[in-house]
Amino acid sequence: MKKALSDSGKPLKDIHPLGEQLCGKLFEFTRKGKMLRGGLVSVGYEMYADECESVTVPLGAVQELFQSALLIHDDIMDRDLSRRGAPSVLGQYVGFAAERSLKDSYHTGESLSICAGDIAYFLAFEVFSGIPLEDSLKSRLLSLCARELTYVGVAQMVDVLWSADDDVVSVEEIINMYTYKTARYTYALPLMAGALAANAPDGEVLTLELLGSQMGVLFQIKDDELGLFGDREKLGKPVGSDIREGKKTLYHHFLMKDLDTKKRQRTVSIFGRDEPSEEEMTFIRNRVHELEIRRKIDEIAAKITANVEEKINALDCNARGREMLLQLLSYNSTREK
Amino acid sequence: MKKALSDSGKPLKDIHPLGEQLCGKLFEFTRKGKMLRGGLVSVGYEMYADECESVTVPLGAVQELFQSALLIHDDIMDRDLSRRGAPSVLGQYVGFAAERSLKDSYHTGESLSICAGDIAYFLAFEVFSGIPLEDSLKSRLLSLCARELTYVGVAQMVDVLWSADDDVVSVEEIINMYTYKTARYTYALPLMAGALAANAPDGEVLTLELLGSQMGVLFQIKDDELGLFGDREKLGKPVGSDIREGKKTLYHHFLMKDLDTKKRQRTVSIFGRDEPSEEEMTFIRNRVHELEIRRKIDEIAAKITANVEEKINALDCNARGREMLLQLLSYNSTREK
Repeated sequence: MKKALSDSGKPLKDIHPLGEQLCGKLFEFTRKGKMLRGGLVSVGYEMYADECESVTVPLGAVQELFQSALLIHDDIMDRDLSRRGAPSVLGQYVGFAAERSLKDSYHTGESLSICAGDIAYFLAFEVFSGIPLEDSLKSRLLSLCARELTYVGVAQMVDVLWSADDDVVSVEEIINMYTYKTARYTYALPLMAGALAANAPDGEVLTLELLGSQMGVLFQIKDDELGLFGDREKLGKPVGSDIREGKKTLYHHFLMKDLDTKKRQRTVSIFGRDEPSEEEMTFIRNRVHELEIRRKIDEIAAKITANVEEKINALDCNARGREMLLQLLSYNSTREK
Repeated sequence: MKKALSDSGKPLKDIHPLGEQLCGKLFEFTRKGKMLRGGLVSVGYEMYADECESVTVPLGAVQELFQSALLIHDDIMDRDLSRRGAPSVLGQYVGFAAERSLKDSYHTGESLSICAGDIAYFLAFEVFSGIPLEDSLKSRLLSLCARELTYVGVAQMVDVLWSADDDVVSVEEIINMYTYKTARYTYALPLMAGALAANAPDGEVLTLELLGSQMGVLFQIKDDELGLFGDREKLGKPVGSDIREGKKTLYHHFLMKDLDTKKRQRTVSIFGRDEPSEEEMTFIRNRVHELEIRRKIDEIAAKITANVEEKINALDCNARGREMLLQLLSYNSTREK
């Protein structure tokens, strides 16, 4: 990926030093992630191929660049100034604008970050265009990636909309939003892309789509837990931003549904406002314990997990591939970042 | 394009009604444009082909969707609430958030618009993936489009940076920024894409790249003029937004360079602040007349025009194609929107 970015960085440097600087930022930012999506391309490929092939590297890099672009824009919407243990791209450009005493430095930083996210998408498609794949497969993969990204975009709009009011949404609506906002592009898309590159049969690709979506929902459910109970140091970002942004997580759903009027009012007053204080975080955590919300969410997760396991066992892939998927499933339930 | 958007809109509707609504907005917004870029794909194609072919329609639609996406994000950066004679996509979503009394309605509207622009890009790539072109040509075109968009992104960053300080930049730097921010993707990219689709020789594609970039610079120079002296009704957007946003146009360059200290100070105080008043606009226009800035800019444009004409005459295309390019050149100098 470094090579792809530095090759692409050359002409961008000729336009302005900002172009080269951005390629450096994108490489640093992308490198610091979990590389989960890139790794899943290899898993999807190796499930149906005897050996690893070089095509999974750029195809994985494309997924990682998509992810970086999504996060860069997401951080603008959520006003998150840190990410992955360092200033987010938004935080970096707001800082850049403030250091130079540019007018309206926050807005200038936001604008530069919108461009940075856009450029990360374009670089991803540029890297994609150069992948040595059979041409008809390439068109199919391009269509798949582009379509999955449109889903993410619409689900992101839903997330923004929900974060901006105090309504309570149903478990089904929340799981649907998780599916499109996170789950499909995080698990289903890279697994399908890898499997398609290895010429897996259509039926297998369809099963990967279904089980990938469900694994991704489990991933998001874990993310919600870490966002509320995780360790800031390990996460590399502040705990409680879901609360500050008023995110309609499953935690929010059960809190709103089951709290008595007084405690619900206090909870409403904490969600979607400023950075929650330590005391407010403790209040929310105590309510979660009191109502046994983790148990309720664990039950939802357990049902999905059983369903995923069934699908994994029904796959017609090699044994090593099946083992990797099962390991991934257990990795998610224990991860701390 | 309507068909492409309504086909893509179906799965987006299943996620949430916002998805279908957005496809409607994108179609309306895109339809209202000049359709210059889509048209130029046909010009590029017909220059090297005996007849029009259906491939230019989706390839043109892709360019128009890129343009809509760029404008949607551009309007967020410039805080333009109207565009093409109606509320911009930003204006629509800010209005949508305000009507529903959503929290922080301006930021919510901005966030929804970031998503809307992203989705327009993804839809463009999805439409692209389905174009019936020879596969190797498709990879080449994909690479070309993605790379040109990275150039636009970096030049947009430069524009944002320049708008946020009071420095004076040189004519060369301004023309360079115009080239990458507007000129290449507006003229060079669609002409090249159309010519490539018609299997034009590489030398011709290169000439189209050069002359397209220059025609695009002329287009931007005209845009600057319309932004200062144009008719709000015809333009469909407020006159003076370049001043409000402190854009480093050629007008800004010559004003800063040639005004006496007192008038320069007043000019600096008008650029990059609030919406300029009618009196402030008149002050700026009078300074432009006084310093004969239009003549200076016309001289720059005349040199570029002569260069473009020379290149058009050197092309090895059919007579009809040459005629269309010459007409386009003269259309730009007389257009009022």
